[in-house]
Amino acid sequence: MNPIINLNADLGESLGAWTMGDDAAMLGIVASANIACGYHAGDPLVMKRTVRTALASAVSLGAHPAYPDLQGFGRRRMEVTGEELAAMLIYQTGALMAIAQSEGGRVTHVKPHGALSNVACANLEVAHTIAQAVRRLDPTLILLAPAASCLAQAGAEAGLRVALEIFADRAYQDDGQLAPRRLPGAVIHDIDEAVAHVRRMLDAKAIVSLSGKRLPTRIDSICVHGDGKEAVRTARAVREALTAEGYRIAPLTDMDFA
Amino acid sequence: MNPIINLNADLGESLGAWTMGDDAAMLGIVASANIACGYHAGDPLVMKRTVRTALASAVSLGAHPAYPDLQGFGRRRMEVTGEELAAMLIYQTGALMAIAQSEGGRVTHVKPHGALSNVACANLEVAHTIAQAVRRLDPTLILLAPAASCLAQAGAEAGLRVALEIFADRAYQDDGQLAPRRLPGAVIHDIDEAVAHVRRMLDAKAIVSLSGKRLPTRIDSICVHGDGKEAVRTARAVREALTAEGYRIAPLTDMDFA
Amino acid sequence: MNPIINLNADLGESLGAWTMGDDAAMLGIVASANIACGYHAGDPLVMKRTVRTALASAVSLGAHPAYPDLQGFGRRRMEVTGEELAAMLIYQTGALMAIAQSEGGRVTHVKPHGALSNVACANLEVAHTIAQAVRRLDPTLILLAPAASCLAQAGAEAGLRVALEIFADRAYQDDGQLAPRRLPGAVIHDIDEAVAHVRRMLDAKAIVSLSGKRLPTRIDSICVHGDGKEAVRTARAVREALTAEGYRIAPLTDMDFA
Amino acid sequence: MNPIINLNADLGESLGAWTMGDDAAMLGIVASANIACGYHAGDPLVMKRTVRTALASAVSLGAHPAYPDLQGFGRRRMEVTGEELAAMLIYQTGALMAIAQSEGGRVTHVKPHGALSNVACANLEVAHTIAQAVRRLDPTLILLAPAASCLAQAGAEAGLRVALEIFADRAYQDDGQLAPRRLPGAVIHDIDEAVAHVRRMLDAKAIVSLSGKRLPTRIDSICVHGDGKEAVRTARAVREALTAEGYRIAPLTDMDFA
Repeated sequence: MNPIINLNADLGESLGAWTMGDDAAMLGIVASANIACGYHAGDPLVMKRTVRTALASAVSLGAHPAYPDLQGFGRRRMEVTGEELAAMLIYQTGALMAIAQSEGGRVTHVKPHGALSNVACANLEVAHTIAQAVRRLDPTLILLAPAASCLAQAGAEAGLRVALEIFADRAYQDDGQLAPRRLPGAVIHDIDEAVAHVRRMLDAKAIVSLSGKRLPTRIDSICVHGDGKEAVRTARAVREALTAEGYRIAPLTDMDFA
Repeated sequence: MNPIINLNADLGESLGAWTMGDDAAMLGIVASANIACGYHAGDPLVMKRTVRTALASAVSLGAHPAYPDLQGFGRRRMEVTGEELAAMLIYQTGALMAIAQSEGGRVTHVKPHGALSNVACANLEVAHTIAQAVRRLDPTLILLAPAASCLAQAGAEAGLRVALEIFADRAYQDDGQLAPRRLPGAVIHDIDEAVAHVRRMLDAKAIVSLSGKRLPTRIDSICVHGDGKEAVRTARAVREALTAEGYRIAPLTDMDFA
Repeated sequence: MNPIINLNADLGESLGAWTMGDDAAMLGIVASANIACGYHAGDPLVMKRTVRTALASAVSLGAHPAYPDLQGFGRRRMEVTGEELAAMLIYQTGALMAIAQSEGGRVTHVKPHGALSNVACANLEVAHTIAQAVRRLDPTLILLAPAASCLAQAGAEAGLRVALEIFADRAYQDDGQLAPRRLPGAVIHDIDEAVAHVRRMLDAKAIVSLSGKRLPTRIDSICVHGDGKEAVRTARAVREALTAEGYRIAPLTDMDFA
Repeated sequence: MNPIINLNADLGESLGAWTMGDDAAMLGIVASANIACGYHAGDPLVMKRTVRTALASAVSLGAHPAYPDLQGFGRRRMEVTGEELAAMLIYQTGALMAIAQSEGGRVTHVKPHGALSNVACANLEVAHTIAQAVRRLDPTLILLAPAASCLAQAGAEAGLRVALEIFADRAYQDDGQLAPRRLPGAVIHDIDEAVAHVRRMLDAKAIVSLSGKRLPTRIDSICVHGDGKEAVRTARAVREALTAEGYRIAPLTDMDFA
């Protein structure tokens, strides 16, 4: 039987009159969508249209909650108490759940965005806050988390199903964290290099860092990006490479995580 | 058997460091709460705390969606397309549903706020947009609407259960609409007068306008307000008068609407 | 001596991670920029960069205040009292004045945006509120207003210098108001047609409506748009046509308005 | 000749329908007002009314810029680049300058709010960003900064006039920073204790920490707070104690800072 893998992307990041990314193209490539919920991007109308198109493409729906920061696109760290962070996450996820429900669909996973994700990957207390909030809202929700992160650990400890992802276009440090964007080589722009990066990690069943260090991990999903022409082509190339190697690309809802 | 009636109030209208109204007092008086959802007031933490206290008081939970306008407290009319209005209403209601769910409760009614309510009471097209959005989200939700309004009519036509409310502290025009706040006598400040106003309408089974005109209607609920010391005392006096006359005060979820 | 005319465009309408229009291209075409002030678009960083580039291009700076509505891009009418509208306009204009000042420049005109402009063109009371607010802030500011509008009239009555503009890509009704966007022919997409439209009005020294009706008016400025490739080419074609006919394109600050 | 000292307070922190503090009372006590600029509190109408009342009370006007965070009242640290922080500060200060100008007044000082102030007191790089932004906007603006802070140092190095303030109701650590609010004794609630705290520091011409350590400093101003009945009474008691000791209370604009 063919191995199964998921491809996910951040979508629905337009806002009112402003457009971000090529969602239509990406929905033909990925199998699961992380949809902005209005805090870093997205508005109710963008959310509705993204949900509708994703459902028509048989792409599974995830909430992509963030710090409240349109101006900074959710990329700025913000000091928020655990109680407030949990409430913010539930608020955003619930908004998307209702929009999905009114379109005949269902939100089946949650993936934190930007600075919130970065903090949750390195800070176990914040990671636990997020995992507990997801569980309190709906324990059947899948937590989509970077492999080898505090967030993945906290999700497992909370008894959630956790999908482990790697990034096609981002390099890793030896501790398994993403290399910060400002460092040379942190973002992989070349399509062939991105495909090779993904292949290398899948073959090794491990995160492979810039220095070549391996951190063994299960890999359930590959995150690709959709802003910029090149990004869409990278995403497509990753999909084709996976298919060529015999992988079946499936939504998170079709997977086991074990 | 005693007649049954509902008392409702707008709650959870604080925001971050700012406090509005005396929610704790009001939750000891009313049986159903209309909870702000972050568009005109409220934030995720305020929503969570309001939900928690309401549940502890056996008060049923309603969403109180509004135009996106913190600065104007949702009291400014805004030109919004039907598609966007529906998406905004579902977004806000869903956010509260998730917070309620994570606290072990359920949102059981929806009541539009401020300018959005005023528009929906007089404009049948907007009223239909709201009623259809509620139905698409969850057809078991009760629509709490002013008696004799377009909103009530649209709710019935959409097949929703509609709870009809009158206002204890607001005078009516001959067409059944609220007299605008700027008119003398539009807002009833005297406690005894408010109680008499409610009694007169319940006895008449009708809205009774400033000029004495009667518009026969079923009355399921009485809306009381909670901002200001006097308002809380008025709300309490209305409750006591109803109890003295043999009414049982019940949450909307205990009622039939027929 | 060559006749003199101004070309203006709305610029600085990006927001955080979202880009709108091709400001760099437009700053090589127009002589005056209407810069978003954060209420419908723009943020402090976008404003600063737009001011800096405009100054480097010898383009004069104007504030482009709007209703507070990022989600709706300032295109939704909103019920705001005169006192609050005046305060909002002064707030936005002042924010841009300070940014200009810190970059060694000066804001020399004000032009309302979107729905606020539409209301001010047809409603004399709102127009007076705007003109008085501008005058109270700084009576040397130029008011850039559509020709034959209430706003132009109110500006003149307030003793402001008023620059009268026509739109290159918008058709007019017989009363001199813009034809609403939803009507066929309201927006002129063809480049040659837009150039002919401008020429016809300059030759006639009048607004020329869809039906051919003429409303005589002074014309000080032509508004061109910059969102979309075609728009930039239209703007450039208008500039070239004007230059070919012997006009000198100048910033509003070089003009007389009499 | 009598010694001269300033009393300042944070004012204009209401928002739309929400009220914060007793500004009217405080304007009869302090000589300089730090007015919220819409990022953590305040809106254009609140700003206008605060400016008008302050001018009528001969209280000098200062801008009180903050991180963009209404929900968190500007009390949450936020990761913002220096370039963006400078632009945000100029935006907010300019908005208030324009409102002051339209009311016949002038903004004469700047004092950062909440988390932004806390960061600027301990982080010299952020402090320099703020001081340089103030200087670039208007080098005659006074920077109101906590005594013994990085912000005060950066202001002096930028060539600004710097007014040094101490807090009547906050205890200090040995390094001169405010004791964090969560620590016991960090906030002084007792009126007599607050008055004694101020007197002790004025007599010692030094910050006096919780442990009794003294950090010699010039003291130009005393910051008092106005939210809560007790706070207003504390502010009044501080004023009366100063007057009784022969101090003349003056706006910052009457002072020398040397």
